[in-house]
Amino acid sequence: MNDQKPEPRQAAQGDSEKSLPHKAQLDQLREEIDGIDKQMVDLLAQRRAVIQKVTEVKQQHELPTFHPAREENLISARRAQAVQAGLDPDYVEDLFRTVLRHSRVGQLDTLGRRGVRPGAKVLVVGGRGQMGRFFAKWFRESDYDVRVMDRDDWPQIGSLAQGVELCMLAVPIDLTADVAARIAPDLPPQCVLTDITSLKRKPLDAMLHSHPGPVVGLHPLFGPTTTTMDKQIIVVSPGRQFEQCQWLLDQLTVWGNVLVETPAAEHDEIMSIVQALRHFATFAFGQFLHSRGVPILRTLELSSPIYRLELAMVGRLFAQDPALYAEIIFATPERQGLLKDFIQSLQRNLDLVERGDKAEFMERFREIAKWFGPFSEQALRESTFLVDKLVHRF
Amino acid sequence: MNDQKPEPRQAAQGDSEKSLPHKAQLDQLREEIDGIDKQMVDLLAQRRAVIQKVTEVKQQHELPTFHPAREENLISARRAQAVQAGLDPDYVEDLFRTVLRHSRVGQLDTLGRRGVRPGAKVLVVGGRGQMGRFFAKWFRESDYDVRVMDRDDWPQIGSLAQGVELCMLAVPIDLTADVAARIAPDLPPQCVLTDITSLKRKPLDAMLHSHPGPVVGLHPLFGPTTTTMDKQIIVVSPGRQFEQCQWLLDQLTVWGNVLVETPAAEHDEIMSIVQALRHFATFAFGQFLHSRGVPILRTLELSSPIYRLELAMVGRLFAQDPALYAEIIFATPERQGLLKDFIQSLQRNLDLVERGDKAEFMERFREIAKWFGPFSEQALRESTFLVDKLVHRF
Repeated sequence: MNDQKPEPRQAAQGDSEKSLPHKAQLDQLREEIDGIDKQMVDLLAQRRAVIQKVTEVKQQHELPTFHPAREENLISARRAQAVQAGLDPDYVEDLFRTVLRHSRVGQLDTLGRRGVRPGAKVLVVGGRGQMGRFFAKWFRESDYDVRVMDRDDWPQIGSLAQGVELCMLAVPIDLTADVAARIAPDLPPQCVLTDITSLKRKPLDAMLHSHPGPVVGLHPLFGPTTTTMDKQIIVVSPGRQFEQCQWLLDQLTVWGNVLVETPAAEHDEIMSIVQALRHFATFAFGQFLHSRGVPILRTLELSSPIYRLELAMVGRLFAQDPALYAEIIFATPERQGLLKDFIQSLQRNLDLVERGDKAEFMERFREIAKWFGPFSEQALRESTFLVDKLVHRF
Repeated sequence: MNDQKPEPRQAAQGDSEKSLPHKAQLDQLREEIDGIDKQMVDLLAQRRAVIQKVTEVKQQHELPTFHPAREENLISARRAQAVQAGLDPDYVEDLFRTVLRHSRVGQLDTLGRRGVRPGAKVLVVGGRGQMGRFFAKWFRESDYDVRVMDRDDWPQIGSLAQGVELCMLAVPIDLTADVAARIAPDLPPQCVLTDITSLKRKPLDAMLHSHPGPVVGLHPLFGPTTTTMDKQIIVVSPGRQFEQCQWLLDQLTVWGNVLVETPAAEHDEIMSIVQALRHFATFAFGQFLHSRGVPILRTLELSSPIYRLELAMVGRLFAQDPALYAEIIFATPERQGLLKDFIQSLQRNLDLVERGDKAEFMERFREIAKWFGPFSEQALRESTFLVDKLVHRF
């Protein structure tokens, strides 16, 4: 972004060159600031050393990384101290949230690798794809006996599937049903069968139909480039013998994930909006910018941080895997219907603009605002907070 | 205290209730952490006290608030210290960026109110609207002699306009030309005439046509709820006698704004994308969610932080003034044409989905990704940074 700096007034011009009394005074104050900042980094280093001891104790006693009540107490104490000292408590909270997150992620690096069922045999099917490799790595680091198979390994299926306690299907959506049917006969009946695709109803039906044992559908809402699972969400759609699947869910929780249980049908309906429609709209916006040859960098210079953020949401899509987005957008005929409805609704809004009917536009606007309810105020607050971060960071 | 032997694994189950050795150990370590955190807040308070002294010196000698080189040196020194201490330098930089921004905004609160031409008479037309009140307040706090007029004050125009050195039009876009024509005859010829609407070509033409003196068009890219002007962008479209307008631009800079100079025509073209199209697309997305009765809060529970952020961009629109968005979207016939093109291009993308042509979709995707170039990687990085903030903050 454009980092023009304010010009000093005429009187101040060139002052910084000469060694005037105020220059010496400022230099001395700046030295004081540097001394304070240095002490702060020293304290951060001390803090990390203590956290390492905490981690060791937790590791020895198998205690959880994350202690929400402890974090909130800590924040409250620092906020109270800030008020006493005449500092803005939100500012102090902001700093300590960063410190806590850093320490949490650091602890997870050590504690979050603990295996809930170490030594258990895990078969990752499609284990050479991005998500497959991702999960294989996490299981391996938590001391599971991980086997990986891909399309060329069917001849070895007998030995690969022998004695596995978990079989995870990490294959594209449109292959999941076939792969489930083909692999199920070789799995031990007590093996947990799961998939990680972004649809749940069809894959879950296919798994339940092919395998008589425990079945659970998972949808991790993150990509393979994620380096920490801290607070990442995984949707869990129960299939059969949920208790037998519990150890797998415990493992995901130990890694730091947050699990949200949802029936497969509800999951699919919500994802058609959250993923298919949203991604289609974002793709189409990027495609339009491209087709018009819009000068992206120049628009950024002339933009509020909020537009920069909006454009970043478009740009980030195109830094990712086209196949993944194609899979999500093209997944089901219902999704095509949804997109069609969306474009018709856009067309109706355009009619309004072409008629120049501002009054009707504003009335619709207010109606939608009412429907969004308190969410829109919260959205304004959250996005403003983020925009502040963006302004001071980039 | 660290030389205790590890507890056997089984013994740890259910320990947290009882006061076992490791419990006492953890308590002690947590006390150490609290002590460190307390010292950090003490240092922040000390830092603020020194910054106040810096502010006083700067105030006495009319020095600028913001010193980019000084900020970057400070960050570099802390990063180097972090590496020495075995800390993640990005983490330390992140913390100090927050500290610096806080200190900059705090200094701006004092220094940024300085009037470049204190005592000068400023007339804000439309001064009872939101943006009008906003600017009137800032001029007043910088010791200008501020007069405000609104639609009922035309009878007093003679006395209100007498001797003014700046006349700022803060009226809706479609009134700007009329108001300029009506007020110009009463302005002193050397008065600077400016407007703050989100279009620049038409208002600038109207002002140039009505007033023979200095004219400059402004477009502040922020709303009236902004509490700091720190690094806020204002687009500047020169009209006539640019040097005579310089003191106004200096004043905006002292307040903390970043000015970007742009010809009116280029401004309007870029804003049709950055504002009109973007706002229309966001409005239409919200309208569609409303028309389908999508359960917003449930979708948030089942969503990645990136969707939460995307939905926040939609929600925040509806927390704001419908008239403002109507004005931007309905501004010119060219904008309607742009929206029409946009919907046609969406329709073509839908055709692709309806044909099930994944290959073509992926090819287009790659082509657009190439066109976005390094921006998409940067967008991914920036938005991931923000998503991290969102995860640990809300």
